[in-house]
Amino acid sequence: MVVDASDTGDVAWMAISSALVLLMTPGLAFYYGGLVRAKNILNTMMMSVISMGLISMLCVVCAFSLAFKGDFQYAGLQNMDVSNWPGTKIPCLLFAIFQMTFAIIAATIISGAVVERIRFGAFAILISLWVLFVYCPLAYWIWGGGWIAQLGAKDFAGGTVVHISSGSGAFVTAMLLGKRKKSAEQGMPHNVPFVILGASILWFGWTGFNGGSALAADEVAVLAVATTFISAAGGMVSWAALEVIRVGKPSTIGAMTGSVAGLVTITPIAGYVSPMGSLVCGIIGSLICSTASLVLERSHLVDDSLDAFSVHCIGGFTGAILGGFFDTKYGLLYGASGK
Amino acid sequence: MVVDASDTGDVAWMAISSALVLLMTPGLAFYYGGLVRAKNILNTMMMSVISMGLISMLCVVCAFSLAFKGDFQYAGLQNMDVSNWPGTKIPCLLFAIFQMTFAIIAATIISGAVVERIRFGAFAILISLWVLFVYCPLAYWIWGGGWIAQLGAKDFAGGTVVHISSGSGAFVTAMLLGKRKKSAEQGMPHNVPFVILGASILWFGWTGFNGGSALAADEVAVLAVATTFISAAGGMVSWAALEVIRVGKPSTIGAMTGSVAGLVTITPIAGYVSPMGSLVCGIIGSLICSTASLVLERSHLVDDSLDAFSVHCIGGFTGAILGGFFDTKYGLLYGASGK
Amino acid sequence: MVVDASDTGDVAWMAISSALVLLMTPGLAFYYGGLVRAKNILNTMMMSVISMGLISMLCVVCAFSLAFKGDFQYAGLQNMDVSNWPGTKIPCLLFAIFQMTFAIIAATIISGAVVERIRFGAFAILISLWVLFVYCPLAYWIWGGGWIAQLGAKDFAGGTVVHISSGSGAFVTAMLLGKRKKSAEQGMPHNVPFVILGASILWFGWTGFNGGSALAADEVAVLAVATTFISAAGGMVSWAALEVIRVGKPSTIGAMTGSVAGLVTITPIAGYVSPMGSLVCGIIGSLICSTASLVLERSHLVDDSLDAFSVHCIGGFTGAILGGFFDTKYGLLYGASGK
Repeated sequence: MVVDASDTGDVAWMAISSALVLLMTPGLAFYYGGLVRAKNILNTMMMSVISMGLISMLCVVCAFSLAFKGDFQYAGLQNMDVSNWPGTKIPCLLFAIFQMTFAIIAATIISGAVVERIRFGAFAILISLWVLFVYCPLAYWIWGGGWIAQLGAKDFAGGTVVHISSGSGAFVTAMLLGKRKKSAEQGMPHNVPFVILGASILWFGWTGFNGGSALAADEVAVLAVATTFISAAGGMVSWAALEVIRVGKPSTIGAMTGSVAGLVTITPIAGYVSPMGSLVCGIIGSLICSTASLVLERSHLVDDSLDAFSVHCIGGFTGAILGGFFDTKYGLLYGASGK
Repeated sequence: MVVDASDTGDVAWMAISSALVLLMTPGLAFYYGGLVRAKNILNTMMMSVISMGLISMLCVVCAFSLAFKGDFQYAGLQNMDVSNWPGTKIPCLLFAIFQMTFAIIAATIISGAVVERIRFGAFAILISLWVLFVYCPLAYWIWGGGWIAQLGAKDFAGGTVVHISSGSGAFVTAMLLGKRKKSAEQGMPHNVPFVILGASILWFGWTGFNGGSALAADEVAVLAVATTFISAAGGMVSWAALEVIRVGKPSTIGAMTGSVAGLVTITPIAGYVSPMGSLVCGIIGSLICSTASLVLERSHLVDDSLDAFSVHCIGGFTGAILGGFFDTKYGLLYGASGK
Repeated sequence: MVVDASDTGDVAWMAISSALVLLMTPGLAFYYGGLVRAKNILNTMMMSVISMGLISMLCVVCAFSLAFKGDFQYAGLQNMDVSNWPGTKIPCLLFAIFQMTFAIIAATIISGAVVERIRFGAFAILISLWVLFVYCPLAYWIWGGGWIAQLGAKDFAGGTVVHISSGSGAFVTAMLLGKRKKSAEQGMPHNVPFVILGASILWFGWTGFNGGSALAADEVAVLAVATTFISAAGGMVSWAALEVIRVGKPSTIGAMTGSVAGLVTITPIAGYVSPMGSLVCGIIGSLICSTASLVLERSHLVDDSLDAFSVHCIGGFTGAILGGFFDTKYGLLYGASGK
């Protein structure tokens, strides 16, 4: 049997991208950990990092197989051909590892809606079941060739599979759990440097999340890295500007949350929009997420502790809609790679 | 039109290098944040991270175009050919993103001279103007083919454009702002682990800053990575050794500051000197920066809060001078890549 | 003379791997710093980071030459051919830098057994001598073509050279130094977020440690990255599960220590075992390290402050033994790359 050779540049890019996406989970641990009350920081961080262990094991055992084959043929990451994943120049195993890091971060996002109100054991069971019964089917339908893909839906880097699904999961769980008891210190973030550290690691790791979704070190990856950085910048500045208008000065937490909103918004469309389009998307996405967060807080409908729903679900959804307007192929703004 | 294919290895290297340089800005936020008084840490860190948003937007809109084209043709990162940046095998857009991260970190360095004495809004305006009216023209004159480049000046990875210019900018701003009120706790760094975290992230990110300046994953990049690591090591040990001589024992702050001095010193010459030459450069650069910092502190001339001038401007200048002696082509010490 | 061209993908992968392994040292500084009492955190972190300066200089001057040539021919990283390191497509200098980062982290591991009980100057001398007289000969015998290599021993990514040797060195030093005075707060880790940060950086950096040990961006690197992530996950979950059995609930420290145990265990065999094999190795390795740590603590034999011996030496040894059973070539479990 002839084994197709991998491309060393693509392998280097996808291997480092996998490591970058994995690093996003401790990044989220610091981001969330910095936002909660001091007494809950350890519980919150533990809920993030345990995904790295639990969901990795689940992916190896069966979740990757369910998500990308639809059955148990790849269980144990076995029985994959030794040559490259279809349509790429990277080995199947590298594709599996890259996807594993996506499932880990998706499960971690859910913790943002339930911190300070759930026991660790219950959370471990929750995310395991969520990965098996929500994430895997959705990934298969959209990425694995299932019915949603056949409808023509596009999801560049997991805007739908990762962010909308985990954001919705967070919303449902938060509703089921009910609200935290209100207390004076509740809204006060406990550790701003941790928020900066966490959001910066997220931004850094998102280079691999979106850039790696090209599955190659090519022009699409370059465009995705560029739009990712630019949208995050737009999101940061617009959230901070909104604070200046609303309360007279920007906050560090606002700036960092805005950058995360920009990152989420660009995710489903990172490989399609032009650089200027991504700037506009980041600005709009951040303003919508910011508004959603305010509305949700005032509505008393649900206690979305750390904006998991209003940033990830709303942001992912906004990006998916905006993609139609800014797609370089037939969109409003043409850019460097508008061919 | 025939589109030149990019090299996947070069693209992988430059994309990760861009992410590494971007990460230097939060690194600097922690480095500076750890050095100031506890009450100023958030303001200091906010001044660093906001560059990631503000300067990114500026670069997309017009600063990149001004710095590398001299006019507004590339404004919005548009109208660049779809094929590779001249002289490289990477797409134009990737070159633009890599350069964007340089402008961000340059603007961030300035905050080191003005922390604890400037309002946030004024700082935002200051760095925006500085990028447009100092950084962009300088980058164009040296890197974009302007008159300084035509004189034959070499600036490998931004020793002049980034470090000397931002260090000088810091000096001028610090003079204009006058001194902070002296207080007993002023000199005491508030959070040493943050200084370690920040300096380590800087060192890590500098791999992309200098290594990426080769614009390819080639022998020059390898030499630049090697000399970067070695010079930082030399800078760390010599600053610590000087402390042993002066006060009897080394400090963690001294070791980390020394490593940054070594990193700055090697920046303008990272792709030219031999490994042994870089060790000598790191040691000399660190000793000169250390002395400059002491002299400046005692002279009461200017209150350079966090050594932005004495490390970045003096270090960059020292490196540019030392480059003449240690250049592998006609220098004193030949090395592995002395061809 | 014809110079063999380097492969850009391999160069990109090895350059970023070098940076990743270098980052492990500040990672270890935070991991160890978080585990000690608050009053010792700075001393502990300083002992880690100083290796980055001291051991780098030593490697440039002579240690690399001693470890890989057996004499002083490569002293100063000079007199290496300009073309690629034998058997690879990367320049000699890049190979030297990658190996330099290994020596740095090995020396840093030793500090884990001696923190809170040794003066800084004595530690600096200790690790310098250890690198010259233990690490270099061992590296030469195993990797440099010496007698152990000729016996047919395999050590994929430094399980023996780095982890067993530094773990043993830690054990001997801890014995010689005697125990710390017991105090109530001694066992209480001082800063759990630092432990999470440190262990996460270690996990991230280990991508380069094991993946880079393939010396190319090829299938072996991919397998090594995969087994590294999976073994760390297995180690995390099994250590936490053991805590649930023993004391009723898992701890964050336990989860992170378990992931490090999983990482150490897979190191000597990361490029040989199947994904499922690596999961089993991580689980078994973590359980054995956890048991060793308990036994050692109760035996009062030696005060291995931060489990440097029980994690690194026992873990490295366990991995080397398990490798025989799980090697994809003739092992119990076949996997994706079982050709």
